Amino acid sequence: MERQHTIKQYDLELKEIRSRLLEMGGSVEQMIGNAMKSLVERDTDLAEATIEFDHRINRMEMEIDEKCLQVLALRQPAARDLRFITLALKIVTDLERIGDQCRNIAKHARKLNIEPPLKPYIDLPRMAEAAATMVREALDAFVRGDAELALKVCKDDVFVDQLNQQINRELITFMISDPTTITRAIRVNAVAKCLERVADHATNVAEMVIFMVKGKDIRHTA
Amino acid sequence: MERQHTIKQYDLELKEIRSRLLEMGGSVEQMIGNAMKSLVERDTDLAEATIEFDHRINRMEMEIDEKCLQVLALRQPAARDLRFITLALKIVTDLERIGDQCRNIAKHARKLNIEPPLKPYIDLPRMAEAAATMVREALDAFVRGDAELALKVCKDDVFVDQLNQQINRELITFMISDPTTITRAIRVNAVAKCLERVADHATNVAEMVIFMVKGKDIRHTA
Repeated sequence: MERQHTIKQYDLELKEIRSRLLEMGGSVEQMIGNAMKSLVERDTDLAEATIEFDHRINRMEMEIDEKCLQVLALRQPAARDLRFITLALKIVTDLERIGDQCRNIAKHARKLNIEPPLKPYIDLPRMAEAAATMVREALDAFVRGDAELALKVCKDDVFVDQLNQQINRELITFMISDPTTITRAIRVNAVAKCLERVADHATNVAEMVIFMVKGKDIRHTA
Repeated sequence: MERQHTIKQYDLELKEIRSRLLEMGGSVEQMIGNAMKSLVERDTDLAEATIEFDHRINRMEMEIDEKCLQVLALRQPAARDLRFITLALKIVTDLERIGDQCRNIAKHARKLNIEPPLKPYIDLPRMAEAAATMVREALDAFVRGDAELALKVCKDDVFVDQLNQQINRELITFMISDPTTITRAIRVNAVAKCLERVADHATNVAEMVIFMVKGKDIRHTA
């Protein structure tokens, strides 16, 4: 009876890690959208709020870290659960750094918003949407242990990289034809780079998920 | 007697994690130097070797990860050791991503080496050296549990950021005065950005070390 109670408690703790990670992922996803909106709609208040919101993401990271350490110390999980928790520890770091990138985008937005617009943003929002989807799917792949979905995320990264290169090339033609655009164009380019890094973090998560699932298979065959 | 044997074995395993991390850190440090050398000395063979070397760094990450998981599963470490091992898990990820940045620098070098030189590289090698020192000191701080050294690393990051901004500004003046330099200047700028990310990873490690030692999270107080 006592033991059963402990197992139940342990399951609840694992579930809590899982749900907190998803919650953090949701917050980060929302932050990507807001950072982009603050730029596209020239909404500097939203940019400020997004910069501020990063503190909340940072707190979430620390709390999940602590929770994982607690479970490791008190429950001494083995095999599959151990891999899950150690991966969770790595994944929160990626999520936190995605938050950093969103904060950086919002900082760029704050500066771009006080200058004349360079051109309507078309590819950047598409890039942001693709990156946000990658983040969501990478986390879904993690909590479901779904290697196929993780593989899709890795493949989608190619699309984001292509968009980044396209934006790059377009900005270069801007700069060449009108040198007064150079400072702004470099800043817009930096935003694209931030989004590329968001997608990279999602890809990192997805790669770890594939390893987690595959690693398990290898153990089974051994 | 049996128990003493087990404790000895456990100590050896912790030592092994520590020394493997340092070894990986040394390899990564060397990689930063080689990536930079391949650019400054226009040595495309070295650039190729550096790109290739990244596979070895990736393997090291997986091996240390496995070792950490083993110790977690078999030894059920508590308190301080637990924090050490879970941090090691996070740190190898940072080291691996520093390797990725070096690979990226080498790829840029490969392309820059076939074009006429833009200007002698002066600030970039300084930046690379500072970043490499940060990586070494962050790892030293980790294995020695030295919060003061870790704090120094965090402070040094400001210097690298300043160098990055300086390079940025200089390249913009290049681009404005001669638009034919734009493509190359953007590439050189990307190299500076890679080095800034290397320094960021070192700073991340240092912040985690301070947290480990002081139990206080300064990751997000700045």
